[in-house]
Amino acid sequence: MSIRIGILGYGNLGRGVECAVKHNEDEELVAVFTRRDPSTVKILTEGAAVVNVADIEQWKDKIDVLIICGGSATDLPEMTPKYAKMFNVIDSFDTHANIPTHFANVDAAAKEAGKIAMISLGWDPGMFSVSRLYANAILNNGKTYTFWGKGVSQGHSDAIRRVPGVKDGKQYTIPVPEALEAVRSGANPDLTTRQKHTRECFVVLEEGADPAKVEEAIKTMPNYFADYDTTVHFISEEELLRDHSGIPHGGFVIHSGKTGWNDENTHVIEYSLKLDSNPEFTSSVLVAFARAAVRMQKEGMTGCKTIFDVPPAYLTSMSAEEIRAHLL
Amino acid sequence: MSIRIGILGYGNLGRGVECAVKHNEDEELVAVFTRRDPSTVKILTEGAAVVNVADIEQWKDKIDVLIICGGSATDLPEMTPKYAKMFNVIDSFDTHANIPTHFANVDAAAKEAGKIAMISLGWDPGMFSVSRLYANAILNNGKTYTFWGKGVSQGHSDAIRRVPGVKDGKQYTIPVPEALEAVRSGANPDLTTRQKHTRECFVVLEEGADPAKVEEAIKTMPNYFADYDTTVHFISEEELLRDHSGIPHGGFVIHSGKTGWNDENTHVIEYSLKLDSNPEFTSSVLVAFARAAVRMQKEGMTGCKTIFDVPPAYLTSMSAEEIRAHLL
Repeated sequence: MSIRIGILGYGNLGRGVECAVKHNEDEELVAVFTRRDPSTVKILTEGAAVVNVADIEQWKDKIDVLIICGGSATDLPEMTPKYAKMFNVIDSFDTHANIPTHFANVDAAAKEAGKIAMISLGWDPGMFSVSRLYANAILNNGKTYTFWGKGVSQGHSDAIRRVPGVKDGKQYTIPVPEALEAVRSGANPDLTTRQKHTRECFVVLEEGADPAKVEEAIKTMPNYFADYDTTVHFISEEELLRDHSGIPHGGFVIHSGKTGWNDENTHVIEYSLKLDSNPEFTSSVLVAFARAAVRMQKEGMTGCKTIFDVPPAYLTSMSAEEIRAHLL
Repeated sequence: MSIRIGILGYGNLGRGVECAVKHNEDEELVAVFTRRDPSTVKILTEGAAVVNVADIEQWKDKIDVLIICGGSATDLPEMTPKYAKMFNVIDSFDTHANIPTHFANVDAAAKEAGKIAMISLGWDPGMFSVSRLYANAILNNGKTYTFWGKGVSQGHSDAIRRVPGVKDGKQYTIPVPEALEAVRSGANPDLTTRQKHTRECFVVLEEGADPAKVEEAIKTMPNYFADYDTTVHFISEEELLRDHSGIPHGGFVIHSGKTGWNDENTHVIEYSLKLDSNPEFTSSVLVAFARAAVRMQKEGMTGCKTIFDVPPAYLTSMSAEEIRAHLL
């Protein structure tokens, strides 16, 4: 029988999950839950229901895993513990500093209900995290660097759009090539924030806005831009739509460490992603881990799990024999 | 208490394990077992014993994990099942075609004894395998490519040395840059053996040998060189020692796959290694998984395991809280 998937929240991430489920023959989308009026939400999957989230409890026995596609700021801290009391759940909680608290809340809820709840899945946190862990476990005498980009940062794009005089805008985070090369050389350099990434902004001005003022406001914005070399390009609304409507992203985890009796040998481990669509890749990760969540719960495990807790074999629909024969 | 490690076999790999144990504060080298006269084997670790393998059974209760550093052709198929009856064991069995048989033999032995036996660890099989698995589980609508090098192939170097007229030699496997770029582009090209790798040989001739004959014999050797573009350089014994005595290696696992309702987005996942010392990196992997083996056995698991079965968290000496706070 297929793994029955529910999606809570139908934005970019929810739609990505819907597409990813389509690509996994052992999974089936059963329902999309929304805070909107269900009659206004058109989904792509024939046969799947669109349901108001108020009625979600009625689906307790009809869904194996609920994938919660909400924001980390306010949605997930409330939703994941709440729904872990009814379902196995998956989220992509990515506010690094608050992970310990989120973990504790979700763990208590999932344990009480005998469910598995997997948090902080995607690519960072997610695949980048597990790459950092493997690299540190193997070469503990070393140092890890994470670079993001080239890609669209949603948070920084939102920050641009809040600047007076800005009609619309997109921000790309770009790793500095010289920094990447220095890290790849195994030299373990000390790098400042400014040395690691640059920020490139494409901005559509409101009628009559002063470009010099807008540029200054962006470049000096604390936390978001002040610590970086930032470039601002002013473009038309048409150009923004034509050239910058995608949501690409990616990045690099590079770890370099020493081995040998006297640390005489250097090794470099690199994991990188080049993604056409940030939400669709994230969704593909969520959907693979949904499979693992079901399997772990069937084996009697409960509580909150992260990518660190999941045996990789649990992610695939291939049998243990198949993966040993074809992937080992 | 430290994890007590035993090493069986003290060649390049065994010495690498000794160095790796030194870098892991929660592990301790207790004994090196050898088929040679122990008095002729000088190890680096103060306080560790050197013991003839005939006496290994006496160490059953003094060692938590035995890391078996033998060859895949004849040593490991016999040794790993044999010692899995006495110890938790780790090996680096790398004859891909024979993994199912090796797994079955080792599994039976380890289960009978209530031990954990982890096979086929290192980087390929090993870290490359788990990278292939993660990538295929996330983007199952895609294709995986593995490239090896630039690095020294022991098997091909041995093959060169068996050619009449050759005194000594080293062979480097080199990925073809154009093939790497084609794969990284996400184009999922069909590549022949010749299109993926070239082979470069550095050869020291015996006195009076005919270079043209030797070059011909190497380049036409079936399985090893005939299917590749091979370059042969003749150098002096001094040059070979000076420039080619290292054992560097590495490679790339690149997976490209599509997402989206109509497969409209492409993603590229790449995992790569650049290793100064192939055996020392392999050893570092073995030693990290030794930690996992002990933990899995303590939790009541038994039998043969591969890298696919191990939750990444089990590889590190850091606590679950630490890794969630610092690596997630």
